[in-house]
Amino acid sequence: MSAPVERRAFYDRLAARSAAPLWEVLAQLVTPEPRSPCRPHRWRYAEMRELLMEAGRLVTAKEAERRVLILENPGMPGEARITTSLYAGLQLVLPGEVAPAHRHSQSALRFVLESEGAHTTVDGERIPMWPGDFIITPQHAWHDHGNETSAPVIWLDGLDIPIVKALDASFAEHWPEDEQPVTRPVGHSRDHFARGLVPVDWKRSGAASPVVHYPYAEAREALARVAATDEPDPCLGIRMRYVDPTSGDWAMPTIGPFLQWMPAGFESAPYRSTDATVYVAFEGRGRTRVGEVEFDWEPKDVFVVPSWWPVQHVVAEEAVLFGFSDRPVQEKLGLFRERRGNR
Amino acid sequence: MSAPVERRAFYDRLAARSAAPLWEVLAQLVTPEPRSPCRPHRWRYAEMRELLMEAGRLVTAKEAERRVLILENPGMPGEARITTSLYAGLQLVLPGEVAPAHRHSQSALRFVLESEGAHTTVDGERIPMWPGDFIITPQHAWHDHGNETSAPVIWLDGLDIPIVKALDASFAEHWPEDEQPVTRPVGHSRDHFARGLVPVDWKRSGAASPVVHYPYAEAREALARVAATDEPDPCLGIRMRYVDPTSGDWAMPTIGPFLQWMPAGFESAPYRSTDATVYVAFEGRGRTRVGEVEFDWEPKDVFVVPSWWPVQHVVAEEAVLFGFSDRPVQEKLGLFRERRGNR
Amino acid sequence: MSAPVERRAFYDRLAARSAAPLWEVLAQLVTPEPRSPCRPHRWRYAEMRELLMEAGRLVTAKEAERRVLILENPGMPGEARITTSLYAGLQLVLPGEVAPAHRHSQSALRFVLESEGAHTTVDGERIPMWPGDFIITPQHAWHDHGNETSAPVIWLDGLDIPIVKALDASFAEHWPEDEQPVTRPVGHSRDHFARGLVPVDWKRSGAASPVVHYPYAEAREALARVAATDEPDPCLGIRMRYVDPTSGDWAMPTIGPFLQWMPAGFESAPYRSTDATVYVAFEGRGRTRVGEVEFDWEPKDVFVVPSWWPVQHVVAEEAVLFGFSDRPVQEKLGLFRERRGNR
Amino acid sequence: MSAPVERRAFYDRLAARSAAPLWEVLAQLVTPEPRSPCRPHRWRYAEMRELLMEAGRLVTAKEAERRVLILENPGMPGEARITTSLYAGLQLVLPGEVAPAHRHSQSALRFVLESEGAHTTVDGERIPMWPGDFIITPQHAWHDHGNETSAPVIWLDGLDIPIVKALDASFAEHWPEDEQPVTRPVGHSRDHFARGLVPVDWKRSGAASPVVHYPYAEAREALARVAATDEPDPCLGIRMRYVDPTSGDWAMPTIGPFLQWMPAGFESAPYRSTDATVYVAFEGRGRTRVGEVEFDWEPKDVFVVPSWWPVQHVVAEEAVLFGFSDRPVQEKLGLFRERRGNR
Repeated sequence: MSAPVERRAFYDRLAARSAAPLWEVLAQLVTPEPRSPCRPHRWRYAEMRELLMEAGRLVTAKEAERRVLILENPGMPGEARITTSLYAGLQLVLPGEVAPAHRHSQSALRFVLESEGAHTTVDGERIPMWPGDFIITPQHAWHDHGNETSAPVIWLDGLDIPIVKALDASFAEHWPEDEQPVTRPVGHSRDHFARGLVPVDWKRSGAASPVVHYPYAEAREALARVAATDEPDPCLGIRMRYVDPTSGDWAMPTIGPFLQWMPAGFESAPYRSTDATVYVAFEGRGRTRVGEVEFDWEPKDVFVVPSWWPVQHVVAEEAVLFGFSDRPVQEKLGLFRERRGNR
Repeated sequence: MSAPVERRAFYDRLAARSAAPLWEVLAQLVTPEPRSPCRPHRWRYAEMRELLMEAGRLVTAKEAERRVLILENPGMPGEARITTSLYAGLQLVLPGEVAPAHRHSQSALRFVLESEGAHTTVDGERIPMWPGDFIITPQHAWHDHGNETSAPVIWLDGLDIPIVKALDASFAEHWPEDEQPVTRPVGHSRDHFARGLVPVDWKRSGAASPVVHYPYAEAREALARVAATDEPDPCLGIRMRYVDPTSGDWAMPTIGPFLQWMPAGFESAPYRSTDATVYVAFEGRGRTRVGEVEFDWEPKDVFVVPSWWPVQHVVAEEAVLFGFSDRPVQEKLGLFRERRGNR
Repeated sequence: MSAPVERRAFYDRLAARSAAPLWEVLAQLVTPEPRSPCRPHRWRYAEMRELLMEAGRLVTAKEAERRVLILENPGMPGEARITTSLYAGLQLVLPGEVAPAHRHSQSALRFVLESEGAHTTVDGERIPMWPGDFIITPQHAWHDHGNETSAPVIWLDGLDIPIVKALDASFAEHWPEDEQPVTRPVGHSRDHFARGLVPVDWKRSGAASPVVHYPYAEAREALARVAATDEPDPCLGIRMRYVDPTSGDWAMPTIGPFLQWMPAGFESAPYRSTDATVYVAFEGRGRTRVGEVEFDWEPKDVFVVPSWWPVQHVVAEEAVLFGFSDRPVQEKLGLFRERRGNR
Repeated sequence: MSAPVERRAFYDRLAARSAAPLWEVLAQLVTPEPRSPCRPHRWRYAEMRELLMEAGRLVTAKEAERRVLILENPGMPGEARITTSLYAGLQLVLPGEVAPAHRHSQSALRFVLESEGAHTTVDGERIPMWPGDFIITPQHAWHDHGNETSAPVIWLDGLDIPIVKALDASFAEHWPEDEQPVTRPVGHSRDHFARGLVPVDWKRSGAASPVVHYPYAEAREALARVAATDEPDPCLGIRMRYVDPTSGDWAMPTIGPFLQWMPAGFESAPYRSTDATVYVAFEGRGRTRVGEVEFDWEPKDVFVVPSWWPVQHVVAEEAVLFGFSDRPVQEKLGLFRERRGNR
């Protein structure tokens, strides 16, 4: 290859023409294995809750529009990402507050951590929120959150903000009032789509499940009953994914949510996958090792496992993890890969 | 055209060569509208039940293999069809009896009319049968029926026997014993697939829903709740189709089952469709006019509407109809057509 | 079981109520293997052509609407079927004639046997017909056939008439004139859909391939080139199916057409499948054994293999068979089954 | 809201816990319309070719692994992106050179600008490269490029590098030799999949079209013939997308390639879409206005239109544009949106 000086001058001329030499960066662009700034990390719920309550004193839900502490991956500070492709945050709505109605291209999930019956309204359907409930806000669905109870409501938000940004496809609007009108009774989407029957002439429109509420009571019971008959996967225990019952696909087009049960004493075999995954330890206690990093977890702690880092759990008390990743995107694009065991 | 005699001789020579002149039959083969031997008919449950109980004295379930009275369309006597493409029958299993285990290419549905807890077993899962329950026996699923209660169990069978025959694709086998072993707990298929989550690594195999049991209690409640919010269709009232929650398709590949609610006083607008449809009046009372034919119905009566005959219901008492047709086949083949109103 | 006399009387009472005892017919309805009236048969082209020309003197194309000799399966005389689910016939249009424009629910394929440039027009696109061309007339596409050359045109028709009849879904209409107007240039459907690109905003409507013409020259070359690199299947030689390039499905929703190449000397291993299949020996010579029946064939002979009969070919001269069956239907309904070898 | 100082301290404590206040960044994360660093830009082929030839003197293809000038969007210097989600570059292989064999998760397309018969080999199939040819290197397909002619070969590369990076899913490997063995004849993938027939038992595996080569001669003729009958779209002229003939999907899972014809004198109406698009002016001359930016183009110039910027073309000489974007991804995720006209 030619002399460094000559090259440097050439590269400068390239830059002036909005061009660059691939050979200097090819190895970083196309890596032999996933190589990500994303790092394993655990957020202690107890600590985060305290900060969240402090935020509650600092700013109202209305002022904030959304009073959320973003969980920022320590490998990507300032980027509002928990993994390279996903955003997560902890949201607080205090008694009497409303987080005003808006809608956007970004898909959102809520996984409720504390609630005594606060609510979110999605496209006119008011959804009561109870701990462990999984709630979807599909793309462009109007949504506002309210708390008419006397206890704070706190949930984990998961959104595909980085994906929508990577595709430059963000649209958003505000509703003229703080709250949209409630036009559908509680349970409307479940009654129409989650009971084994659907209206005969219904035609799918959006990309997400028309079911917007998956109550924990029902999901937890299904999990328990499957756990009672099925052999746990050595890596994953009993893992079930939330589905759209009108298509069988993941419940959301860009985010793949699941619930995972592991018995006390379970020590999982190493597992890697290309979908960096966010977990909430909703029930139980245990430890997780991700590569060289290890942390313990207790109820409501959140942790993240980057793409292709080997993960292993050791379960002290019977555990239920809620989790989500960008797996639906990777599957649709042919990029998803997983590896069980040590190979 | 040539002289009749000459033609006749020619046609005979054609027949000797396994050939025939299309022009003599084209108009019968390719008709401007559906022209079927199928006729509208209603079977009174009270009468059929009496005959069924008589059959119960004549032959045991085991001798009969299946003690069923075929509901034969009066336009096609001796052909074991209720519509051109479907078979229906009323099956009785007396206390203490077993209808022995077998399996076959034909898909079957059961809609339970009378039961105090008899059961059917499908691929190792024992399913308790209660009135109004909809149960699937997918292609090649082992199934046997038993009655350990003190009351007779009676249900409506719907099968795609004529379709499988038209395609010459029938395979069947007997299980070596009367009953197959029960290997899965009650509710197994619902727990795995009907609660909004499915095992993450589950891969679809068969063509039917992996959910084999749709209890009436749940379906009826969904129907009631949808009826409470949605405007009834002028022709169909509130009609919901049973779906496979892992695909959103009809619950069966060849038969499209549904539940239809109509309020007291409802008079439906004329409706035609190419899928001849079998109905069970499960709740309520009313009258139905099919073309020039009219009949009334009360709980558990069965009636059939042929392809493209205009149908209208007049509802005396709030009604729930269960129904099924070959619509999934027609949709897959691009043949389904419907027409609302008088045009 | 009870006395025959008592039973007879009971069965009569059942018949009077449009009911019948399943246990007397169950074994015929649900058979352990396909049991069909369909029989293996071969039609000699030379003989059929002579009869067809005689038909040409007896009746004009216009009088006949379609001057076709139906190939009737000898096991089902008078039923206008070549297999249980499909119809086939040989059609003749003489120089100067027109087979007038109509359309219908039935899907049709044409496989051209003799032509020097006659044509068929499908939804405004005029298609020149040359020997070996495969042409589709989708459901409800207007079509008329014409012959402005000085030679007769003869082709094999394949239609799903028995399927549409089994579903009672036939609609048909005549165009007010003998010929529909030609509104699209030759090659229109191929230019839009068969060249690796499709109009960016095109949305699929019908159930069939939007490509209506698959010329033999192109198909034959593809077959030859694949045959030059791929190992022939022991049962099927090199068999390629015609596809809809906008979906990858079979080119027709109800009929599965294919082309099959076998080298001279090839002796195929036994093969069974549930889709009774119609073959045209388009090139080459050979013998085929179907169960106990054996026949030889030469160019343009037609033969039929019933469902689940074992078939074996012995090829004397390099052969190309065109064939079709109801396999797309069976696949969609989960009924297709095949078995290679002697098991 | 509380005092700035207090907030600042709080935010610092949040940062220490890998958390951040959403309310400070929400407006940037979820924008009312796409707001991207991507800028409109045109690269003059004449200039780029000169730089590319200079690179040819600076570094060999083998040293470089790939001797490519990345076309870097001027709004995102140093990021190796032409749009937010896609990479593009101009690649040169000189006579006698080989760009060594490797494979990776990233999908690549090549659009040939200059060639007198150089070649690329994809999974054992050697593909001759001629100007205007569109060639796919699917995910994980081995590929190497060679030039045994006496003229340089230059093509445009399009890859989904930023998408794979956003998903952290990159895997790559080198082949032990410079060139993989050629195991399939020229035309192999086209013969098997692009001629209207596919091998009957072929089962899809990868996510991309099994056809890897779309020669310009055929595509150009299809475009011309469609242009001869269809009305040009006011915004897009005649735009046809490259498809996978075994599925009807876009030819690639992550990149949507198309060819667009516009007649001389054509002035397109404003058009916006969420898929930032890379164009090559392959034939003709014209001007394009993108928002406030305007540039002219001549053969082989490359230009880029960011997401949601209004674009209008004025065509001086009959033009053919090749283009590509991430539209297949946006469609799969439910994010694609387009707007015609000025609204």
